[in-house]
Amino acid sequence: MTIGKLSKEDSLKILSDGKLGRLGCIADGEPYVVPINYFFDGEHIYVHSLAGKKINALRANPRACLQVDEIEDSYHWRSVLVYGNYEEIHDEQLRERMLAELFRRMPHLTPVESRMSKGASQAIVFRLKPDSISGVGESW
Amino acid sequence: MTIGKLSKEDSLKILSDGKLGRLGCIADGEPYVVPINYFFDGEHIYVHSLAGKKINALRANPRACLQVDEIEDSYHWRSVLVYGNYEEIHDEQLRERMLAELFRRMPHLTPVESRMSKGASQAIVFRLKPDSISGVGESW
Repeated sequence: MTIGKLSKEDSLKILSDGKLGRLGCIADGEPYVVPINYFFDGEHIYVHSLAGKKINALRANPRACLQVDEIEDSYHWRSVLVYGNYEEIHDEQLRERMLAELFRRMPHLTPVESRMSKGASQAIVFRLKPDSISGVGESW
Repeated sequence: MTIGKLSKEDSLKILSDGKLGRLGCIADGEPYVVPINYFFDGEHIYVHSLAGKKINALRANPRACLQVDEIEDSYHWRSVLVYGNYEEIHDEQLRERMLAELFRRMPHLTPVESRMSKGASQAIVFRLKPDSISGVGESW
């Protein structure tokens, strides 16, 4: 059994290939973890969310991490952990573009639903600019 | 699209049925998230780990959460978040029993590997006693 660090290239590829991750932040002094869909454009990680505990927590303490993994079984897995600071997107054009990108990656939406979702006025879009990325993996 | 809270019964069932989760804790003031295998005996969540950043972080700040989800697709998912305090198992009999239980749930181990794993002297076993459990789900 070998557990080892992943190269930065492998870590970035897992982040780029993935679309589901777990976002970690600190809420009222406690760790808080939620599953999220994301889109990584090579520079920023974009996430959309409804208002709620996660957004309140991130506005109060912008430090966040995103954990993304590829798990085949208990002995063959790779996990990447990326850190960045919460940045809410207020530019309406960027917000719409990223919402469209995020919804485009959800294959169950029909084109009509996708257009409806694109205009979803309640959704908050935020991003993290990775300032640290690390990965570990295990192979048996 | 409906996002709603899960009942405590449904949340406990997801926790009981699952064996893979993401553990959240605070390391050096930052959120830290790692995938882990666990075993919930109805009272405590048991986890085994090698020494490292996760254990150092939990020894320094024992507050932890475990996030467990069942994700079918972006529109059909349920996620449970459980909080508890880190408690390291020093009782050797309990430690061995829980290591055996944890390895028993890893189907790829042969009986010989499983016995070898059971005696793994380096593994740290810890548990969380849930003091808060909540769940949310979405159906489209």
